[in-house]
Amino acid sequence: MTEDTSYTPPRVWTWEAESGGRFAKINRPVAGATHEKILPIGKHPLQLYSLATPNGVKVTIMLEELLAAGHSGAEYDAHLISIDGEQFGSGFVAINPNSKIPAMMDHSTADPTRIFESGAILLYLADKFDAFIPRDPSARAECLSWVFWQMGATPYLGGGFGHFYAYAPQKYEYPINRYTMEVKRQLDVLNQHLADKPFMCGDDYTIADMMIWPWYGGLVLYNLYQAAEFLDTPSYTHVNRWANEIQARPTVKRGEMVNKTWGPPEGQLHERHDASDFELRTQDKIEDAQKA
Amino acid sequence: MTEDTSYTPPRVWTWEAESGGRFAKINRPVAGATHEKILPIGKHPLQLYSLATPNGVKVTIMLEELLAAGHSGAEYDAHLISIDGEQFGSGFVAINPNSKIPAMMDHSTADPTRIFESGAILLYLADKFDAFIPRDPSARAECLSWVFWQMGATPYLGGGFGHFYAYAPQKYEYPINRYTMEVKRQLDVLNQHLADKPFMCGDDYTIADMMIWPWYGGLVLYNLYQAAEFLDTPSYTHVNRWANEIQARPTVKRGEMVNKTWGPPEGQLHERHDASDFELRTQDKIEDAQKA
Repeated sequence: MTEDTSYTPPRVWTWEAESGGRFAKINRPVAGATHEKILPIGKHPLQLYSLATPNGVKVTIMLEELLAAGHSGAEYDAHLISIDGEQFGSGFVAINPNSKIPAMMDHSTADPTRIFESGAILLYLADKFDAFIPRDPSARAECLSWVFWQMGATPYLGGGFGHFYAYAPQKYEYPINRYTMEVKRQLDVLNQHLADKPFMCGDDYTIADMMIWPWYGGLVLYNLYQAAEFLDTPSYTHVNRWANEIQARPTVKRGEMVNKTWGPPEGQLHERHDASDFELRTQDKIEDAQKA
Repeated sequence: MTEDTSYTPPRVWTWEAESGGRFAKINRPVAGATHEKILPIGKHPLQLYSLATPNGVKVTIMLEELLAAGHSGAEYDAHLISIDGEQFGSGFVAINPNSKIPAMMDHSTADPTRIFESGAILLYLADKFDAFIPRDPSARAECLSWVFWQMGATPYLGGGFGHFYAYAPQKYEYPINRYTMEVKRQLDVLNQHLADKPFMCGDDYTIADMMIWPWYGGLVLYNLYQAAEFLDTPSYTHVNRWANEIQARPTVKRGEMVNKTWGPPEGQLHERHDASDFELRTQDKIEDAQKA
């Protein structure tokens, strides 16, 4: 321990808005809209309001998988939500009172249906299209167990480890140790589980894979939080094998591009309103290459 | 900030087993069983392996609600799992490779079905018995959104706020501020949502209430983490109204007793194998009172 021990919490906590490191401005102790903002509505049944964070990518991968599997009812518009404040607009808060991306509207139902939380959106879509989730109740139970595992586990990776290792204003030893131990344990849970099966729920690729891959695949494939060496991610060999297989899917490559505003320009599709938008990006890329 | 800034993370993290505060001994950077241990199996279709933490109580409340609603297929044995090591026994790990309570086996299916993660268990039971979850797809989407909200939000309350406010070996100002702000935001999300409806998903009590109540009801009703004053929980008036209404349900009072090993003896039912077990506890209480 190197931290000072002199802090005593007050009797009643009060907000000091200046603290909080990166993302401090978007963290508030209160909920609700900060400004009026009507959201755009495109032409398709499904309207996604999102950003290509790992939680956002879960949904765009699922939608691209559904379309590739022939479910034309999964056609969607993906609108960009910048999380430096647009999540507090009145239109977005009306869809997700928790002010987090992703959030979705389904306009194909009798009244438009709102769905928020990435896990809820994937389960809703899986049930709506009877796809990427087992029908057998026992196999479905196994799949749901891993779906909920991801939702409960990842806050320790993103909001815990990622925050303290990469984003907090200082390096605090105790929280970094706490969350590193937990993330390594989670990687080992996955690694042992994937040792004797291709996908999280057995032979079939399901929403459990689509939910776990953007986070834990991100650690091993994309050096998420620049922590691959620190966490020794190459040692989780079965996670690496699984992550590479999923990354190779064209649907996943498309899903990763949607609502992305960083990285190489050819990997960014800020908004997706039609399947041809991906081809246009590819065409841009070819033209750019020809110009260069 | 009062913390020292001298810490630099190593290039590759290594485990120093002595750190970690309360619960340090049960936190490990690896997964899997540490010892052989066969679990008991009782007479009922559902076998629960759990402890009366907020996550455990979700399931026992749901089971008591199902039984009270006439679903005799929800009869269950609740076996006690002490989380100072029994979660690493081979039998438990075979049900939940993540080594967390609650975990459940359903012996009424063709092959016995394992389910882990409290949210997965509640959703499995709700679908199995067609109870405490809306049938209409739009209403179901709203319910699922709040079910998944709880799974994603509560790690910031339990593993974040609770750990740093109540259990960590020292009071660290930055993490306490970070998680306090988030927990107050979550309480405000709930408070605004409950301002104009009786339950989380509208007029009907659902699994979303059963999942959110043990944690956020725990803050306002039971001074969880001794943090009610610090968080100013009385100010969340709609959460308080909702929490009190749910607490008054006899099913909830029974669910809270199961697998409980702390608090007043009359509130503890270490294992539950029959509905009459609760009556015996009441009889004990009467006899104790007569002796006193």
